Amino acid sequence: MADVTFPHANLWQFAFDVFQKINCPEEEAKLAANVLLSADLRGIDSHGLARLSGYVRLWEAKRINSQPKTKIVHARASTAVLDGDSGLGLVVAPKAMEIAIEKANNVGTGWVAVKNSNHFGIAAYHAMMALPHDMIGIAMTNASPLVAPTFSVERLLGTNPICVAIPAHQQPPFVADFATTTAANGKLEILQRKNKDAPLGWIQKKDGSPSTNPNELKDGGALIPLGSDREHGSHKGFSLGAWVDIFSAVLSGANYGPWVPPFVSFLSPPSDPVGEGIGHFFGAMRVDAFRPTDEFKMHMDKWITRFREAKTIEGQPRVIIPGDPERESEAIRLIEGIPLNNKVVEDLSDLAKKLDVKFFG
Amino acid sequence: MADVTFPHANLWQFAFDVFQKINCPEEEAKLAANVLLSADLRGIDSHGLARLSGYVRLWEAKRINSQPKTKIVHARASTAVLDGDSGLGLVVAPKAMEIAIEKANNVGTGWVAVKNSNHFGIAAYHAMMALPHDMIGIAMTNASPLVAPTFSVERLLGTNPICVAIPAHQQPPFVADFATTTAANGKLEILQRKNKDAPLGWIQKKDGSPSTNPNELKDGGALIPLGSDREHGSHKGFSLGAWVDIFSAVLSGANYGPWVPPFVSFLSPPSDPVGEGIGHFFGAMRVDAFRPTDEFKMHMDKWITRFREAKTIEGQPRVIIPGDPERESEAIRLIEGIPLNNKVVEDLSDLAKKLDVKFFG
Repeated sequence: MADVTFPHANLWQFAFDVFQKINCPEEEAKLAANVLLSADLRGIDSHGLARLSGYVRLWEAKRINSQPKTKIVHARASTAVLDGDSGLGLVVAPKAMEIAIEKANNVGTGWVAVKNSNHFGIAAYHAMMALPHDMIGIAMTNASPLVAPTFSVERLLGTNPICVAIPAHQQPPFVADFATTTAANGKLEILQRKNKDAPLGWIQKKDGSPSTNPNELKDGGALIPLGSDREHGSHKGFSLGAWVDIFSAVLSGANYGPWVPPFVSFLSPPSDPVGEGIGHFFGAMRVDAFRPTDEFKMHMDKWITRFREAKTIEGQPRVIIPGDPERESEAIRLIEGIPLNNKVVEDLSDLAKKLDVKFFG
Repeated sequence: MADVTFPHANLWQFAFDVFQKINCPEEEAKLAANVLLSADLRGIDSHGLARLSGYVRLWEAKRINSQPKTKIVHARASTAVLDGDSGLGLVVAPKAMEIAIEKANNVGTGWVAVKNSNHFGIAAYHAMMALPHDMIGIAMTNASPLVAPTFSVERLLGTNPICVAIPAHQQPPFVADFATTTAANGKLEILQRKNKDAPLGWIQKKDGSPSTNPNELKDGGALIPLGSDREHGSHKGFSLGAWVDIFSAVLSGANYGPWVPPFVSFLSPPSDPVGEGIGHFFGAMRVDAFRPTDEFKMHMDKWITRFREAKTIEGQPRVIIPGDPERESEAIRLIEGIPLNNKVVEDLSDLAKKLDVKFFG
């Protein structure tokens, strides 16, 4: 079945209503709806409304606290650790990023590790909060273990994304936001819905042999770190994912590696936790703590323009600057609406009924 | 011809003598020899003595200043920009890392961007300087353009490595040091010397089509970002390399992208520079700016142990923790000596004659 398209405002209202229905304070429900819908607008369909009922189920399972009292539990002039009090990551993460920005205002850079949180939506939302302050923003998070380290058959890491957002002048900002695996889990979900095979190099079977079955994870298979195999650098993808895991969770006091609680509510978190909740890590760096902002932005324009205008391989229209596709998606979807897969629409309709919230605004 | 093995002390002495012969002050010649030999010890043969004559040629071409007066040209409490005064990166980089460590001592983290520098050897040497201080160390650098962005035929980025070094307690530290390409250029050099083909996915021809010829770069070909192709995430490798380029050079005021001066002295730097020399970026984070050091290290031991003991794919002996192979190489080579390829030995003998320095100590 074809996708159905909905106006952004209607979907935003629905998400806001749902977050209020699970007792989020009004301002936090707005924030959560903003973060969630930014994924749908930017074309990261796996991290937007498609996850809303999942958050609600985690709240029902008492694994998400809809009225968290976050607090800073450790700090230096340029650092902090924030306890998310089991809140929605959608709400906890922007609070942490605000602290990083405040610290950067004071001493040039700010770095905040977060424990006791939950899934935070797309990393780009949080990293991009730095941009209006003429700062570089960094956001990363660990996630439920779905990824096998190079040479292993065990799922020990999440898809652990990193985002780096860098301001420019007349050019749009550089925003690189990516899972540290060959393909994000959302890409698999799309193939599952379409009944299509995955390319070799994305997934391995339970015994570590190659697979093209997007449902392989249900049979004990695993996602593969960026690089696909040792010969093509999967140990580098593993290193990246490990780095994100350690910064997000070992620094903060959250669960790491195979101890990270699963996103799905029907699986119980490990009974021997090594920390609290899942972990994130944020950074903000004032550009003018390094060189005058105008100078920096002029050179970013030059950098972006030079790469965008690079000569392409025959048949390829252009070199894509990180952030281009998402910004283009946002511009279109704000006007034309957000297409939702029919399985997502069904899921949201069920959620609307269950919570007695109006869906089609 | 087989490799010849030399005692570490003899090779160190030779490097030290060569650096003194090109007028490096004694302490800086020691430092440069330490950094250079750390590559040979750690098994990163492409970044050790194999590059020594290249540094000398850059000094002869007046592109390396052997008596640099480095200075901090911009700073905040947690940041600095260091002007390397065209010095050897081998000397400038450790100075920058010391500044980062000092700032971290004061405000929790320190971040130093460097301009007007040259090739800095292996990133791991610099990042690992943080470890004895119970800090996490980060080092990255841009480099001569050899890498084509996804969809392009132009060489616009260097292999732009990143290193993250993280202390543990009884376990050795986690040290991930990797080029942001599918394969480092040093890997190609090894294949060239052995007359062997490269795997598909490492290199492209001048027109962007796949190649297995390790000499392809001499015909206008390019290295490929980590991920190998778009379907396997090469846009992520491109994003990583771009991130390193921007932090190292756009933040510091060095040359970026295709304007980075070539390492080889027979190619002239671009005539329209956008900055000064090449750029690096360093970070140091006190672990106890986030949580008590003992607690952090205990959890790092647990992280490392869990991953090291992960169940492997049949036929694979173990999961490799980042830093394991290099540390094992160092332990062996300190005792058994450092094997040098016969072409490298020839090159060093020529250098010894030219500079009237004794080679076989």
